[in-house]
Amino acid sequence: MSLADLAAELRRFAAEREWERFHTPKNLAVSLAVEVGELLEHVQWGSDEELEARLRTPDGQRAISEEMADVLIYLVRLADVLEVDLLEAASSKITANAVRYPADEVRGSSAKRPAP
Amino acid sequence: MSLADLAAELRRFAAEREWERFHTPKNLAVSLAVEVGELLEHVQWGSDEELEARLRTPDGQRAISEEMADVLIYLVRLADVLEVDLLEAASSKITANAVRYPADEVRGSSAKRPAP
Amino acid sequence: MSLADLAAELRRFAAEREWERFHTPKNLAVSLAVEVGELLEHVQWGSDEELEARLRTPDGQRAISEEMADVLIYLVRLADVLEVDLLEAASSKITANAVRYPADEVRGSSAKRPAP
Amino acid sequence: MSLADLAAELRRFAAEREWERFHTPKNLAVSLAVEVGELLEHVQWGSDEELEARLRTPDGQRAISEEMADVLIYLVRLADVLEVDLLEAASSKITANAVRYPADEVRGSSAKRPAP
Repeated sequence: MSLADLAAELRRFAAEREWERFHTPKNLAVSLAVEVGELLEHVQWGSDEELEARLRTPDGQRAISEEMADVLIYLVRLADVLEVDLLEAASSKITANAVRYPADEVRGSSAKRPAP
Repeated sequence: MSLADLAAELRRFAAEREWERFHTPKNLAVSLAVEVGELLEHVQWGSDEELEARLRTPDGQRAISEEMADVLIYLVRLADVLEVDLLEAASSKITANAVRYPADEVRGSSAKRPAP
Repeated sequence: MSLADLAAELRRFAAEREWERFHTPKNLAVSLAVEVGELLEHVQWGSDEELEARLRTPDGQRAISEEMADVLIYLVRLADVLEVDLLEAASSKITANAVRYPADEVRGSSAKRPAP
Repeated sequence: MSLADLAAELRRFAAEREWERFHTPKNLAVSLAVEVGELLEHVQWGSDEELEARLRTPDGQRAISEEMADVLIYLVRLADVLEVDLLEAASSKITANAVRYPADEVRGSSAKRPAP
């Protein structure tokens, strides 16, 4: 499956349920935030070491995968509604970030805010 | 470019800058939430009609694309760090949602919370 | 009860449970975001009219009150940990916003982003 | 200043600018999430030790205070619009949390998710 396939599947899912009118940009952005909130619950309290350990167990990985899936689903649905090419937008952003954060200047430092 | 290509590019980007140690699950989840906050700014005040109009102009579309790109970037980076297959997770979720929201029962209604 | 009383009660609550070491700024900020995500669930799908109606029923009001309480609790706890005077900070912000958004210039318009 | 004074001041601020119609529950909840996103930026990358140090300098404290002020402002404005008594709601929540997390059972542990 590709992102384009996922977008098509979500479009069909919404159409079959006549949910398109709920899928406004505002509602989808809110939904994205709801799901990111649920994802954050999984990293709310533990130390980095505890979280690494827990999130790599089968149960931990499955639980966070489900939240990440929800985030991706709403993001892809929003992109489809707004006719945004997500992969192209991400690719442009990486190119811009490479200029903004030259490897030789920022190596090992988070003083300049590290984009991934 | 595919999601797998994007993940590989982000892995290289972080490695070249020695940023891997900042890319803990907690920090990446927080970064995801920061970017979703920036995306929400674009839908903060207008009515659905105003937002539809604004987000479909070239400037509006470009602005929200950049925020969506940032969300995708952190999501893909987090998935790569946690070795989660995002597309497989999304596909499983859609299958589960199809059972949870049978088209014939939920058609046209948001009483049962519409997943996309 | 005042905000200062609430802060004192939360401090005691954490101390009795020896939870202070979990209450780092990062964890409390993440918790705040988790609770805001839960609050957003209550405004995720309906139109403004539907939400106004639902949130003013006793059940609707109670449900959203609980989420708002959680947001306030984490915000006050974070302020207490960081020794921030929330009411003073809010008062300064309003003074700054009054300069930034002169009533005569922004009346009735959200072109300049309306702060409350 | 009390929370009630703050609510009254925000009500006047919105009235003078004829912004009441923008202050729907959905828009205010989205605004709250936008501000929490900005607050999260301040805890995005550092370790707990680095953050503690930075957020306790005058500059660090001032910066995060401003974001916390914005969060409080939108929360109080939303409560005012929905006629929710925030302090009473928080007080009820603490009472419920005291039952849910008995000190003797949860002491020193985040296994049961620590509410503050």
